[in-house]
Amino acid sequence: MVLLDQTRLPGEVVEVRLAAWPQVVGAIRRMVVRGAPAIGVAGAMGVALAARQDAGSSSDDQRAEIRRAAAALRDARPTAANLAWAVDRLAGEAAAHPGPPEALAGALAGAARAVHADEVRRCEVMGAHAGALITRGARVMTHCNAGALATGGYGTALGAVRSAFAADPSLRVVVPETRPLLQGARLTAWELEREGIPYTLIADVTAAALMADGRVSHVVVGADRIARNGDVVNKIGTYAHALAAREHGVPFIVVAPTTTLDLTMPSAAEVPIEERAADEVRDLALFGRPATPEGAPVTNPAFDRTPARLVAAIVTEAGVHRPPYDRSLAAAVAAQEDPAT
Amino acid sequence: MVLLDQTRLPGEVVEVRLAAWPQVVGAIRRMVVRGAPAIGVAGAMGVALAARQDAGSSSDDQRAEIRRAAAALRDARPTAANLAWAVDRLAGEAAAHPGPPEALAGALAGAARAVHADEVRRCEVMGAHAGALITRGARVMTHCNAGALATGGYGTALGAVRSAFAADPSLRVVVPETRPLLQGARLTAWELEREGIPYTLIADVTAAALMADGRVSHVVVGADRIARNGDVVNKIGTYAHALAAREHGVPFIVVAPTTTLDLTMPSAAEVPIEERAADEVRDLALFGRPATPEGAPVTNPAFDRTPARLVAAIVTEAGVHRPPYDRSLAAAVAAQEDPAT
Repeated sequence: MVLLDQTRLPGEVVEVRLAAWPQVVGAIRRMVVRGAPAIGVAGAMGVALAARQDAGSSSDDQRAEIRRAAAALRDARPTAANLAWAVDRLAGEAAAHPGPPEALAGALAGAARAVHADEVRRCEVMGAHAGALITRGARVMTHCNAGALATGGYGTALGAVRSAFAADPSLRVVVPETRPLLQGARLTAWELEREGIPYTLIADVTAAALMADGRVSHVVVGADRIARNGDVVNKIGTYAHALAAREHGVPFIVVAPTTTLDLTMPSAAEVPIEERAADEVRDLALFGRPATPEGAPVTNPAFDRTPARLVAAIVTEAGVHRPPYDRSLAAAVAAQEDPAT
Repeated sequence: MVLLDQTRLPGEVVEVRLAAWPQVVGAIRRMVVRGAPAIGVAGAMGVALAARQDAGSSSDDQRAEIRRAAAALRDARPTAANLAWAVDRLAGEAAAHPGPPEALAGALAGAARAVHADEVRRCEVMGAHAGALITRGARVMTHCNAGALATGGYGTALGAVRSAFAADPSLRVVVPETRPLLQGARLTAWELEREGIPYTLIADVTAAALMADGRVSHVVVGADRIARNGDVVNKIGTYAHALAAREHGVPFIVVAPTTTLDLTMPSAAEVPIEERAADEVRDLALFGRPATPEGAPVTNPAFDRTPARLVAAIVTEAGVHRPPYDRSLAAAVAAQEDPAT
């Protein structure tokens, strides 16, 4: 499989070719590929790759390898719901498939492609739903990157921006840089520039002041996991933006596929929050000079929890969901499982 | 005059020698010296330097040069109250002084030294007042650098931390890096390390999550200007921390000398907010790689406004002031002007 190395953007556009599933685990961990829907797609492809690698072995050996790959891929990052969902879907297809190694490898490759195609379709549909919530002349703030890079195609939050901009070219975007890994500066600004959508880059801490000055009309973000009660787990910093948005009457909108909903979690309190390496905070240079005392002690949680009471709407491919979320999200999942309802 | 170049820390400890007042204007603008009380001291020394440079000229020429220097120094940065206060104090002493050039130069040198000594004394007194508000086992979060570097000696917010740590070595400090110029990572972490006070460095956006987890017990910050009603203008990012602190019942304490109070400002809305260069946001490298598309459009206000209703206490050298601030701050200023009251 081939991935665009997101750690090298915006300076370099580099593709990496992954030939074996442990490389996929590494790429997910190092965030060569990142964004909840995109790592789901990568996880599915990793399982398919394991089946392909062992297509010449005995069926038992191949199936043992698929199980090993699935376990390692599922654990590569703990917070996003989509990764476990996609890996479990492929592992389930493998377990149910009666065929010999070569046939199983083909079936899983097809299943992984279907996961990818489904995510792209979901993003397009939810982008249109969410875009309709964005009023004319909007000043939309997003956080992190919930764009094409994060989703394998069109974007969740940035899909909504794209959809709204197509209808109203006076829309403008505010992009917080999103420390520590700067996905806003490195990826969202890069995507918006390529699309010709006007934006302003800010230090993350500037968001609340802009809201106080009336310079943000909507906050639109993606999510890594959404609990049954509507609590949202997303990139660290989302919660502070949600508090400021409530203070200034700015609607706070979350856009994510139903694969990000985790109805087994009663609230965000139960969702594990990944702690990442201290060097993500420390290894920074400003004007070419190192910015931090060497070896400074660091706390670096990658995500935070935004309580449902701060969320104006959750948008999935099933539509726009409003509080009380325990009811509306359950209905969204049911609708996806049985499209006739 | 000799300054420690704060733009080079923590990598290099470099002193710069300023021989003429326009260099002092440049040093304040480029933030070689920064922090509201410290730029007040530098401004006073700049006026004294102008008098010294022209001590061999006619009295009229010297006094014209002092006025030019005072005007330029007062305008070097617009937001902090202390700079205008200190420059006006020196300019007032010059206007009232009857003597010839050499005597005037000597008098202003003495007055500048007095401004410095007064700021150090104020910090020590207010550090003790504020330190007493910090309970045992505290987890104190500060923002930016309101330490020795910012104040010419002891620190305002960090003076309170220092004072509280002396009484309770179980105190710990949370240090947000403070984008864009990273005064938390570059200066506060460096000061705490030298003092042996344990701290944890975080990306700014992590603050609200730590408060939600009960890992911050007090927020203690300095200020650049405080309006008559108790609104606080301080480093960009302070406002978001204040919103999160209120949400989680964490007391938000502001420590600043009475020279930071500006009773001529009814509220923070009237205080000018400095917009700084885009490159402060853009010229950043993560893991040695440039983090931002070249030429990305940027908004970079250096300060934000925290409304008085979010502030639990304002501490000056006159004591601990509580709401309603219009009364308590006016009393603090009156007490300083007439120490007998």
